[in-house]
Amino acid sequence: MNLLSNGGVTSPEGFLASGIHCGLKKNNLKLDLALIYSTVPASSAGVYTKNKVKGAPIYITKEHLINKKAQAIIINSGNANTCTGDDGLSKAKRMTELTGKALKLKTTDVLVASTGVIGVPLNIDAIKDGIPLLSERLSKDGFDDAAKAIMTTDTYKKQLAFEFYIDNKKITIGAMSKGSGMIEPNMGTMLSFITTDLNISGEMLNEALKESVKISYNRVSVDGDTSTNDMVLVLANGLAKNSKITKKDENYYTFLNVLNTLNIILARMIAKDGEGATKLIECIVSNCKCEKDAEILSKSVINSPLVKTAIFGSDANWGRILCALGYAGVNINPNKVDLSFESSTGEIEICKDGMPLPFDEVKAKEILLQDEIKILINMNSGECSSIAWGCDLSYDYVKINGDYRS
Amino acid sequence: MNLLSNGGVTSPEGFLASGIHCGLKKNNLKLDLALIYSTVPASSAGVYTKNKVKGAPIYITKEHLINKKAQAIIINSGNANTCTGDDGLSKAKRMTELTGKALKLKTTDVLVASTGVIGVPLNIDAIKDGIPLLSERLSKDGFDDAAKAIMTTDTYKKQLAFEFYIDNKKITIGAMSKGSGMIEPNMGTMLSFITTDLNISGEMLNEALKESVKISYNRVSVDGDTSTNDMVLVLANGLAKNSKITKKDENYYTFLNVLNTLNIILARMIAKDGEGATKLIECIVSNCKCEKDAEILSKSVINSPLVKTAIFGSDANWGRILCALGYAGVNINPNKVDLSFESSTGEIEICKDGMPLPFDEVKAKEILLQDEIKILINMNSGECSSIAWGCDLSYDYVKINGDYRS
Repeated sequence: MNLLSNGGVTSPEGFLASGIHCGLKKNNLKLDLALIYSTVPASSAGVYTKNKVKGAPIYITKEHLINKKAQAIIINSGNANTCTGDDGLSKAKRMTELTGKALKLKTTDVLVASTGVIGVPLNIDAIKDGIPLLSERLSKDGFDDAAKAIMTTDTYKKQLAFEFYIDNKKITIGAMSKGSGMIEPNMGTMLSFITTDLNISGEMLNEALKESVKISYNRVSVDGDTSTNDMVLVLANGLAKNSKITKKDENYYTFLNVLNTLNIILARMIAKDGEGATKLIECIVSNCKCEKDAEILSKSVINSPLVKTAIFGSDANWGRILCALGYAGVNINPNKVDLSFESSTGEIEICKDGMPLPFDEVKAKEILLQDEIKILINMNSGECSSIAWGCDLSYDYVKINGDYRS
Repeated sequence: MNLLSNGGVTSPEGFLASGIHCGLKKNNLKLDLALIYSTVPASSAGVYTKNKVKGAPIYITKEHLINKKAQAIIINSGNANTCTGDDGLSKAKRMTELTGKALKLKTTDVLVASTGVIGVPLNIDAIKDGIPLLSERLSKDGFDDAAKAIMTTDTYKKQLAFEFYIDNKKITIGAMSKGSGMIEPNMGTMLSFITTDLNISGEMLNEALKESVKISYNRVSVDGDTSTNDMVLVLANGLAKNSKITKKDENYYTFLNVLNTLNIILARMIAKDGEGATKLIECIVSNCKCEKDAEILSKSVINSPLVKTAIFGSDANWGRILCALGYAGVNINPNKVDLSFESSTGEIEICKDGMPLPFDEVKAKEILLQDEIKILINMNSGECSSIAWGCDLSYDYVKINGDYRS
């Protein structure tokens, strides 16, 4: 498995992309409309927010994916098209019609996603006027503009691609994501779009995506707020010409392994670029009774505002971590918990059997001043583990979300 | 029911209190040791944190309350005596022994509570040296010092007292609380101490306390972090000489009503004085299928960092509120939700049937600039309701908990 330099959604065979400014964002320089296109029909699968309040695009995309086939994805930022009623639904539908018309595809072969403000009518005219240019701009180089066009408060683009081999055929997989705020996965949160030239059935693609989302996007939290518009979509167009994956054989697991790696990298990027974040927090809970408990515990730690602010302040406040384990709703034995911090400068043991150890405070500070912090928790109660990714809570989170004067 | 001016835990007949600085807090001017004493034995009840990581005082107080009787409560701030192992347990026990000796009480008639930093050995010598002075200072005027001595990052004392009548006897009930950070009720969080001269059995007192905690402290959240040391204790010494309440009769409900009012006022005070808070948020969810759903929904709204930052910024961001309802884990119909904001300057309807209404933004801003904001949510799906109390999320929350340089 090789990470490609400068890879993205157009790295796999037969995929083109583009991104333009059509007028949904006020700033003319900010792209707000993206398109991903496969030159041939592709197997496709999606996973969606579990929020009961769902954006209109969720309904349309789900409907268009009933046959597990698609060929294009149209995505806008700047407006979530959520809480917009029947008008919102018909505009989401309209986005797929207009895109289908421009690309000579059936409407149902086009998927749609939106991100941005909730409850504001979507400016469909801007999108309508933009789609011809967006289609014209489709190219192999368009991945970068597409990745920019789906950003909201993200501070950097999130995209990558891998190469791997199945049946001695080179397979390429690429992806782009956006995250930032309103991020707490109750499915696989945020937006993520994955393309691959793998030959795989829609059923198996769907299985793999669901499996992978559980241990990647579903273990990220920026602020505990599960968005209304979260969506992960994958298109697999088969141009790599491997023998089609139609069951859970060795090739399926080879693909799943790559998909997991890809999604975990994107999940970490999303956590690290959480609104106002200065640090990535990776919480690894090991030796737990079952994986579900480990997952709940790891997520409780990365969601705790007191842990998040302590990490922002580079403070080895293990008491807040134990506290977050204690209220997670899982039956734990606090007297068995061991705790360490780790970063690029080293590792330090802080707590053993639920009790503090004497530790070198200068070394602890040095570890916690880095921008990727691991919290290692050994429950000493079983054999299961989980990782969750979050970020610190800084002044800038408050500024971005609450201070409109500045 | 009359609110007493300048009331507190010593307002009821036969209660004395005191507060001193014994040396647990570094600042000499800050009180850190409090005592509440009833001149006669009292019925007593307690409710404790559900965090699996519990402070040592929780275990000792629970043990001493098996007989539902007590006569004194010793409380320290500056150290939570949590994650301190057997040493912590023996020191918590020692606090009750030393207090019992000074007051000529059985050790088991003394209850103990602690709040402050986790995982640091308790300086029992400072407490030992302080207890004689603390006992000596016991007085009717001591309620104020006691209320100060339990504060941590609280910015003001939280105490009050009511008078009411049962059997034509005047009953007085007083209380003091502390809150601020690590506040999310999974029992009745934070510390709260209630005194009354009511004549009531330990069993009925216990019933009333549990009932009342559910709809008061258990509906407060500052940051979603359930502390390890939360405790609510009540002493009822019977000196008002009403006929003893031993069953759920009219007198019981009269008392319960007063107790609810008292605890709700304290719960609101705790929410309003949350770490860094500039505003109290009161979320009222009405016309819901069942009370449990209403409670979960109201707590989801007050816990949302995005709602909290929006209220900090006085922004009528109803989309974030709908989003928080949607991910609460309750089966809701978003298309039936009506939403208003209310404060001392008026009320404004923002959203009807899940869709935005046109509203006067100047009026909305004026409403949201006040320091007590009501979020009124009508689910239009049933007859049950719930209120939850929280606070906004400001720069100061981050500063208090994360920025040790300033």
